[in-house]
Amino acid sequence: MAILTFISDFGTADPYVAMVKGAVYSQLPEAKIVDISHEVSPFNVTEAAFHLRQSYSIFTRGTVHLIGVNADHSDDTPHRIAVYDGHYFIAADGGIFSLIFDKQPDAVYDINVPYDSDILTFPVLHRLVKVACHLLRGGTPEVIARQAEAVTEATRLRPIIDGDSIRGHVVYVDRFDNLVTDISSSMFREVGKSRAFTIHHRTARHKIEKISGHYNEVPNGEKVALFNSAGVLEIGIGGGAPESGGGAAQLFGLKKGDLILVVFHDRSNR
Amino acid sequence: MAILTFISDFGTADPYVAMVKGAVYSQLPEAKIVDISHEVSPFNVTEAAFHLRQSYSIFTRGTVHLIGVNADHSDDTPHRIAVYDGHYFIAADGGIFSLIFDKQPDAVYDINVPYDSDILTFPVLHRLVKVACHLLRGGTPEVIARQAEAVTEATRLRPIIDGDSIRGHVVYVDRFDNLVTDISSSMFREVGKSRAFTIHHRTARHKIEKISGHYNEVPNGEKVALFNSAGVLEIGIGGGAPESGGGAAQLFGLKKGDLILVVFHDRSNR
Amino acid sequence: MAILTFISDFGTADPYVAMVKGAVYSQLPEAKIVDISHEVSPFNVTEAAFHLRQSYSIFTRGTVHLIGVNADHSDDTPHRIAVYDGHYFIAADGGIFSLIFDKQPDAVYDINVPYDSDILTFPVLHRLVKVACHLLRGGTPEVIARQAEAVTEATRLRPIIDGDSIRGHVVYVDRFDNLVTDISSSMFREVGKSRAFTIHHRTARHKIEKISGHYNEVPNGEKVALFNSAGVLEIGIGGGAPESGGGAAQLFGLKKGDLILVVFHDRSNR
Repeated sequence: MAILTFISDFGTADPYVAMVKGAVYSQLPEAKIVDISHEVSPFNVTEAAFHLRQSYSIFTRGTVHLIGVNADHSDDTPHRIAVYDGHYFIAADGGIFSLIFDKQPDAVYDINVPYDSDILTFPVLHRLVKVACHLLRGGTPEVIARQAEAVTEATRLRPIIDGDSIRGHVVYVDRFDNLVTDISSSMFREVGKSRAFTIHHRTARHKIEKISGHYNEVPNGEKVALFNSAGVLEIGIGGGAPESGGGAAQLFGLKKGDLILVVFHDRSNR
Repeated sequence: MAILTFISDFGTADPYVAMVKGAVYSQLPEAKIVDISHEVSPFNVTEAAFHLRQSYSIFTRGTVHLIGVNADHSDDTPHRIAVYDGHYFIAADGGIFSLIFDKQPDAVYDINVPYDSDILTFPVLHRLVKVACHLLRGGTPEVIARQAEAVTEATRLRPIIDGDSIRGHVVYVDRFDNLVTDISSSMFREVGKSRAFTIHHRTARHKIEKISGHYNEVPNGEKVALFNSAGVLEIGIGGGAPESGGGAAQLFGLKKGDLILVVFHDRSNR
Repeated sequence: MAILTFISDFGTADPYVAMVKGAVYSQLPEAKIVDISHEVSPFNVTEAAFHLRQSYSIFTRGTVHLIGVNADHSDDTPHRIAVYDGHYFIAADGGIFSLIFDKQPDAVYDINVPYDSDILTFPVLHRLVKVACHLLRGGTPEVIARQAEAVTEATRLRPIIDGDSIRGHVVYVDRFDNLVTDISSSMFREVGKSRAFTIHHRTARHKIEKISGHYNEVPNGEKVALFNSAGVLEIGIGGGAPESGGGAAQLFGLKKGDLILVVFHDRSNR
């Protein structure tokens, strides 16, 4: 049977995650559930989308991904199934799918099964679990949903290519205080064409002119830039800063949304 | 095989939860364990009971619920199995069962199996795991425990009905800073008889006169009252407060134990 | 199939733990994974070793323990498998194995399988998962690794026996604010020979002259010393301190690394 992944902003102190799992196991005792994260900042669909972008493709095709962030159904946020790259995603679509995928999904469906309850405050428990179990059993979306045209488009900060430079952004700060950007290795290669470069950021004292293979390639306390396992540029500190893990966010005073500028140099002019 | 749920105040940083799971799997490799929460405030049986009240019935009958909060055995807190609504609960009974159930359980047993170890500081690991595995295997309580008369009664704050009003309490503040009360929808209907009402609390600026169907029914930043998936009155903020999720606790300055007063109005007098 | 335990400093907010699990399940859908902890302080191999020392032997022999702390491979930290007490441990060996085991392991192997990816920043995902799955399938280390001579020796603070006293240390403060020391019950018995004793620490107001059987043996608020389920001396507060669980660390002002001195008294001289 396919795996169910589950991401939410429910936290792990309250029993809400367990309630959803209990409902899944009641319908499908043999289900296998993997928690992506339940510590998404409350209502933050961008953060949930970021985590899923990074992780979903590690699971095998056929995996069902249940998204419990802002999951209330409304005209602007219809309950939907999106099929993308052989994976199923279930969410209230206020634009989250467009933040996970690079293009329109292969298929989109408006869910039309009724709630299990007249309580509308916990739609993951009372409606979406049933959808997830149907898909896990190998059921087709058509039985419980009606084909829709397209997912809702959310606007997203995107890196901008401007001649010989890329203007990207810090999109996430992880537990190690590493700065994760939206600059992909393919974009870096395409614009850079193997030229020398400088990575600038707001707090200019710490320029970076080299991409490393891993965090320990630089001495402890030195800045390090590398492409992480999701293929995007990440900036950290070798060996981490004392008491704060990777420490780049703290040392550089950078935060989510801040500009990261990569300037590639004229070959002759260096 | 039945599911084992596990709730404790062990936290998730220390390996204590893993040790209990390892002991279960050593005896029952095919066991399925669902964590309810391990972030119960240290020694807080009321909080553990609250989480289980809300969540246990989502699991199928036959589920075994292991409670690792204040689990030391003593004359005042005997290790017991309670059978309620087809579910098994295992705990040191200083009154926690009476906080989970609405009435005496169907059966109560004093556990009489020996500890696995002469170390008495980790009774969940060294005694209660064995009890849980016995029940998961389909064993009867009589083999490992002696029938007892009743569970220990703990005093609990209860909502008071006073003519046309209900005096309830904030019993929990969840991750979204929603205020969960002890006022049930049935009590509300019974006393209210569909009359208009006002919900008052200590910080009087924010009266509520309407029950909503879900959090997004009110504009962002507006107060919202609704009956949650456990069927009790909950007060939140539509769309949440910035940086703090639901934000009701923070905005209203309310905390656990605070009074929530519902006054139903004379029909003619409005 | 054997169990896989997983300990890391990845935290649970980011999707890194889920990515590792997804990779395991992709290779071995029927795998069973138990999280030891993912809240190890960043890069703190001593803490990870401490957690595994305490917990590994609860699992059955054949269990594979995957360690995701400082997991980058280098000449000083080679990727290794250590076989100890019938268990498999996988880590980058900068000395962590020597902190888990009391003696050289039964066998040590240098891992020689290639990475799954040319990204070197997430070796647990791109190399060690493959090793773990191989062992879980019942494969032998020789197929994927070359026998090595010995694990790297890390220096560790050890308790010192000095005539009639033991100079130990606080090695961990748990969620209950209990002070866990490195003084084992066997060392205590051997040096103490059933004599009276006094346990001293830096903040001298709170001397302890008795070992209790469990935390509730003393009145609430009283200091309590006992041997915990790992067989080492632990100092706590009966019933815990208000708002802070066990509270010993807070009340005594002690922290990791602090000296704990046990002085056994001359039999005649008391």
